[in-house]
Amino acid sequence: MTASQPIEYRDASAEVRAVYDDIKRVRKIKDVNNFWKYLAHDPATLRRTWDSIKQIMAPGALDVLTKEMVYLAVSVTNGCGYCIASHGAAARKAGMTEEMFGELMAVVGMANETNRLANGYRVPIDPAFKK
Amino acid sequence: MTASQPIEYRDASAEVRAVYDDIKRVRKIKDVNNFWKYLAHDPATLRRTWDSIKQIMAPGALDVLTKEMVYLAVSVTNGCGYCIASHGAAARKAGMTEEMFGELMAVVGMANETNRLANGYRVPIDPAFKK
Amino acid sequence: MTASQPIEYRDASAEVRAVYDDIKRVRKIKDVNNFWKYLAHDPATLRRTWDSIKQIMAPGALDVLTKEMVYLAVSVTNGCGYCIASHGAAARKAGMTEEMFGELMAVVGMANETNRLANGYRVPIDPAFKK
Amino acid sequence: MTASQPIEYRDASAEVRAVYDDIKRVRKIKDVNNFWKYLAHDPATLRRTWDSIKQIMAPGALDVLTKEMVYLAVSVTNGCGYCIASHGAAARKAGMTEEMFGELMAVVGMANETNRLANGYRVPIDPAFKK
Amino acid sequence: MTASQPIEYRDASAEVRAVYDDIKRVRKIKDVNNFWKYLAHDPATLRRTWDSIKQIMAPGALDVLTKEMVYLAVSVTNGCGYCIASHGAAARKAGMTEEMFGELMAVVGMANETNRLANGYRVPIDPAFKK
Amino acid sequence: MTASQPIEYRDASAEVRAVYDDIKRVRKIKDVNNFWKYLAHDPATLRRTWDSIKQIMAPGALDVLTKEMVYLAVSVTNGCGYCIASHGAAARKAGMTEEMFGELMAVVGMANETNRLANGYRVPIDPAFKK
Repeated sequence: MTASQPIEYRDASAEVRAVYDDIKRVRKIKDVNNFWKYLAHDPATLRRTWDSIKQIMAPGALDVLTKEMVYLAVSVTNGCGYCIASHGAAARKAGMTEEMFGELMAVVGMANETNRLANGYRVPIDPAFKK
Repeated sequence: MTASQPIEYRDASAEVRAVYDDIKRVRKIKDVNNFWKYLAHDPATLRRTWDSIKQIMAPGALDVLTKEMVYLAVSVTNGCGYCIASHGAAARKAGMTEEMFGELMAVVGMANETNRLANGYRVPIDPAFKK
Repeated sequence: MTASQPIEYRDASAEVRAVYDDIKRVRKIKDVNNFWKYLAHDPATLRRTWDSIKQIMAPGALDVLTKEMVYLAVSVTNGCGYCIASHGAAARKAGMTEEMFGELMAVVGMANETNRLANGYRVPIDPAFKK
Repeated sequence: MTASQPIEYRDASAEVRAVYDDIKRVRKIKDVNNFWKYLAHDPATLRRTWDSIKQIMAPGALDVLTKEMVYLAVSVTNGCGYCIASHGAAARKAGMTEEMFGELMAVVGMANETNRLANGYRVPIDPAFKK
Repeated sequence: MTASQPIEYRDASAEVRAVYDDIKRVRKIKDVNNFWKYLAHDPATLRRTWDSIKQIMAPGALDVLTKEMVYLAVSVTNGCGYCIASHGAAARKAGMTEEMFGELMAVVGMANETNRLANGYRVPIDPAFKK
Repeated sequence: MTASQPIEYRDASAEVRAVYDDIKRVRKIKDVNNFWKYLAHDPATLRRTWDSIKQIMAPGALDVLTKEMVYLAVSVTNGCGYCIASHGAAARKAGMTEEMFGELMAVVGMANETNRLANGYRVPIDPAFKK
């Protein structure tokens, strides 16, 4: 397998460039991350993924910082190295301090621990939490 | 395997009762959840887990609502049924509205999707995110 | 999807019965567990899985109790309800006491926690642990 | 921990060489992959794993290409870097085009997303899908 | 936490009904599954998820049956009970025979096994598979 | 994101040094691993994690070797590269031979396989294993 190579703006189709341009505009950055340059091999997935992320990560009932910290928490739980690096950066850019990062990791670690304690002890759901 | 049974307050040792009392005091509840009644079979783990959770989930650089939503996000990612039910309830008690829950799930779903896209395309970490 | 039904001994082919007989002989039990009765829908997988488990779970450099506790630890980490129930029973049959179960769960919980702390802090492997 | 080193053909025991020879014959390759050279430290696991894979990955009700794409989908979901690289290569060798790879990743990503939406919304199984 | 209740067609908003109608039209079914009736609590996620699935699961370089089997393989790996039930049904509807299901499970099981053997033996990626 | 840097003893606060000193005393080592040098950015988590690990990993109903092998089994299942390296080393230091490691990996691999077979075949828990 020759792994994919990133598709740079200068080599991209008009369809791909349109997505890159929108990412750069919304994110206020000069170049898109590797994630997008690899997805560009499948323009339909590139377009759909960006449209979804743009919609989901916009401020709403939850602010951007909370959303980025949740994204990071999921990525740490799944052990996705690329995502931990890129969403760690995004969370910091959105205002996550080192103290907030420390508390976030403490919660993520504890949740992963108690998830297994609940599994192992086969704890039944309390009637109050049931449907 | 005869699965463990929950240990109720009236049947608990003084050591276990002390933890139950502290949980009820801090959480302002009348009875502890099943999770603690099962962990009570191992008083050392009961004590250690409660002490850790009490410390970690207290308000700090992150508020309690954010922490509970992160806890829920991890539990959903791991598919722990008990934890989804109990921390869903805790997050709602801490102020999570249905609109916030909807956005939280959208972020958790999207993070789980892009974690795999990054894996599958073998996306290398951008130099800017490296050490 | 109408889910599969278990295949009981009286309804099984000679090929499946031969595996059931061998399981009952080695395990010294009167009837096989549901796991085998469902795998029996695919006799090749039934045979291969039993042959592998029989080989792997036999006492060797590790004793049977240690092997069953490791099996349980993996099943708890993956959240497989059936496997937690059946290998919890198997571990107890092999000699796991409640005190040992409590310590096992404590280790499993802690490992799941620190796995994520190592991910989140992006801890590089110490030179001493490298190849 | 000094990590294991690969065991090359010239240094392998007759038992290990017999497996290497069979892999090379069935796969029509000149040398076996690192995976087998590391498993060779445990000849029983080497033999059992190869025998199982040879049986499972042979064309049957499913063709080889479909099987390799499923293998890749699981490896991407688990985030196993080695397996993504080796089974990506195997799937391409079996005929996976870049367009097929793109659609495969889209399905894998979406499944990982909706698995968590189903968890988070605690969706009960429709009666039609029940046993 | 009072868990969400499904939103039936008669109680749905025009926005939600439009999605339900489209699902019923494309899938040629009389009522939508529970999954959609729960997502309906968040119309934006309902719409986005259906649009994505409709696009991704349509026949393309991969046929519908292959896509449904991959969806099932991921759901089995993640242990999502709802998704295993619903996509098992969908795969059967698309033509998966019991023999194909048996082979699919064999591949999924083996991939999950060898993913961990590769992790545990710390197998380095062969130069041929590298970028 | 500029990733965290390890905090060396000479640069550590008195609070952090006290934990480092205790780790070195209990573990009889000259310097602590990178894991602790990164956690040191959050002294509360450093202290709590070390106190928990010291309590959990001490010999009890289970000996240290068994505990380290279980830790390794979980880390291999989760695919945590750092943890596989460090707990592989710890298990070897506690007496794990290469033959034991080989059998451990065989059990971990098989458990990950059968966890998915049980999921995929939707095997119901035998009445004997139920509560």
